[in-house]
Amino acid sequence: MRNIKLIIEYDGTAYAGWQVQPNGVTVQETLERSLAQMLGGPVRLHSSGRTDAGVHAMGMVAAFKTEKNLPLRAFSDGLNSLLPRDIAVRGAEEMPATFHPRFDAVGKHYRYTIFTGRYRSPLQRLYAWHCRRSLDVAAMRRAAGHFVGEKDFAAFRGAGCAAKTTVRRVEAVDIAAAGEFLQLDVRGNGFLKQMVRMMVGTLVEVGTGRLAPDDVRRFFETPVPAAKGVTAPSHGLCLVEVYY
Amino acid sequence: MRNIKLIIEYDGTAYAGWQVQPNGVTVQETLERSLAQMLGGPVRLHSSGRTDAGVHAMGMVAAFKTEKNLPLRAFSDGLNSLLPRDIAVRGAEEMPATFHPRFDAVGKHYRYTIFTGRYRSPLQRLYAWHCRRSLDVAAMRRAAGHFVGEKDFAAFRGAGCAAKTTVRRVEAVDIAAAGEFLQLDVRGNGFLKQMVRMMVGTLVEVGTGRLAPDDVRRFFETPVPAAKGVTAPSHGLCLVEVYY
Repeated sequence: MRNIKLIIEYDGTAYAGWQVQPNGVTVQETLERSLAQMLGGPVRLHSSGRTDAGVHAMGMVAAFKTEKNLPLRAFSDGLNSLLPRDIAVRGAEEMPATFHPRFDAVGKHYRYTIFTGRYRSPLQRLYAWHCRRSLDVAAMRRAAGHFVGEKDFAAFRGAGCAAKTTVRRVEAVDIAAAGEFLQLDVRGNGFLKQMVRMMVGTLVEVGTGRLAPDDVRRFFETPVPAAKGVTAPSHGLCLVEVYY
Repeated sequence: MRNIKLIIEYDGTAYAGWQVQPNGVTVQETLERSLAQMLGGPVRLHSSGRTDAGVHAMGMVAAFKTEKNLPLRAFSDGLNSLLPRDIAVRGAEEMPATFHPRFDAVGKHYRYTIFTGRYRSPLQRLYAWHCRRSLDVAAMRRAAGHFVGEKDFAAFRGAGCAAKTTVRRVEAVDIAAAGEFLQLDVRGNGFLKQMVRMMVGTLVEVGTGRLAPDDVRRFFETPVPAAKGVTAPSHGLCLVEVYY
């Protein structure tokens, strides 16, 4: 059996997230349908993880097994000709039979984009969260330092998160300001459900002055505090890369 | 009568261009409908010019007259609450009665974005032209120099262009390369129908080697040559600013 790894970019606007589910079309089922069409039978894609409805990806990783003797190009250019315009394969690679996109991942890089303009922006509406209030970036950077390290992120898991442990290692939270945009780059060894969006929501609370930078420390205390700040909307988030 | 100037941003993807026409919904009619709703009667918007179907704008300028005594905020925040998400007012200003967005404009800045990645990009598909072939940027810059100055752009007018004279002054054509993107910034005192898109299409012909940089000079000779190169697609184009 061949084990084929795909690197996938998608605009999540029209999808109910990555994973197959009863309500709404998902990215996974759209890819599986195109693969089945190409391979002449059902295919199961295993991914590096899920993304919520509306979240985008530049580097989602998924893999599938097949006996078919098609060239790798079939799984990039060929698949791209079957996929809708908001999903594309950026690369296909032959992997050892033991490779698994989720179990073998050692880290992920997410990017969150905030637009701080006075008026809402039609050209940014699908890819950036519009925060009208002015944000204290220096305070956000100080607060971001509290996320870095191996910590218990129990306060930063969304409802329905099924992870067995809530301990994760965040390597870096970098905040770049350019004109009316803030770009938050978050890297770590793994993330709980909605963890990045809850981190960003908390940092924006700090940016507006509703929380002090050191208040973030409280969220890592036991017992986990009830007030968790806001969850940033999904459309500002993009999975940039999965590391192996 | 008050004369109100609006600066308008829009995502042109869903529209049949700026100007009211029988086939398809336009940006102008969408704005006029929201203004009529706010002012309680029909309103006529006069713009700095038209944009083709699919072209975007960050700084389209339009103006309308009204007797209503509403504060300026009504025409920015108020109007934004009535407009669809792909159109927004970025500013409203009280102007002298004689101000006209088209006749008073002294220049315009258009930006054209080209994506040169190996695979098509779902996240860029609405705002950048995907050129798969590798482009010689140095050759494109040399060719771009031939566009600068006061010249007869008769070879760079689209079908149905109604302009009386085809002489225009192009101030600059700047080409910036960053990663897999080329950004072409074109500034001039005015542009014929599809002129920027035909200029960009010609520059891409130079970039791929199908035309030499000096071949561009031929398009300014008399009689106008028949072969005009390709017209770049509309979705890569954005009207950045109108100068007064």
